Amino acid sequence: MMINDPDTVAEVEQAFYEYERALMSDDVPAMDALFHDAPTTVRYGVGEVLYGADEIREFRRGRGGSPQRRLGRLAIATYGPDLATANVEFFRDGSDRRGRQSQTWVRFPDGWKVVSAHVSIEGSSS
Amino acid sequence: MMINDPDTVAEVEQAFYEYERALMSDDVPAMDALFHDAPTTVRYGVGEVLYGADEIREFRRGRGGSPQRRLGRLAIATYGPDLATANVEFFRDGSDRRGRQSQTWVRFPDGWKVVSAHVSIEGSSS
Repeated sequence: MMINDPDTVAEVEQAFYEYERALMSDDVPAMDALFHDAPTTVRYGVGEVLYGADEIREFRRGRGGSPQRRLGRLAIATYGPDLATANVEFFRDGSDRRGRQSQTWVRFPDGWKVVSAHVSIEGSSS
Repeated sequence: MMINDPDTVAEVEQAFYEYERALMSDDVPAMDALFHDAPTTVRYGVGEVLYGADEIREFRRGRGGSPQRRLGRLAIATYGPDLATANVEFFRDGSDRRGRQSQTWVRFPDGWKVVSAHVSIEGSSS
């Protein structure tokens, strides 16, 4: 299995930053298009658990946009041609607590899609 | 791409519960064996960010065991024969706040391994 093939990493980086752009501008259709449209897709947010693309879409429509943030350390890894993980630290405006976002990306016939995501703010216990 | 092939799901379930057993009994060698031994492996814990198998091992050795917990809703999904996501809710003893654990599993020649994990306690903001 080829790990971190440069061309694959570049593709996933592009999809990752397109999602970040969509999130920061509350571009809901673009966010929806980058998540796999299936009941198996899961998103754990800072304050909610969402199972399936329908719940994720509904949350986004009702949210009114994400808090603005800047990204910190980013770690993308690809496993073979069709699977990637993207883990990134972030800091929301007005907060010095570290946020963390993890995404699992899969390449489908219509492009790279997130099949699982987890967003949290770092706590004090381990 | 075959999604949720029953035999593949069964394999990942077995690996998932073996990891839970190891975590609850602080079986560090078993936990280490179930994480991919590579610098690309990432683990975001409730209170720490760990990059690479070395940092993850060091954290486990110094931790003195995980808080005990019971599991809630579990969602395993497999994409093709070699990739899976496992998302589970949990509740630590003495707390009613919801925990969430996300793992990305990849099948390597020596078995299923976690390549990315994210554990958090649900907060109040989204």
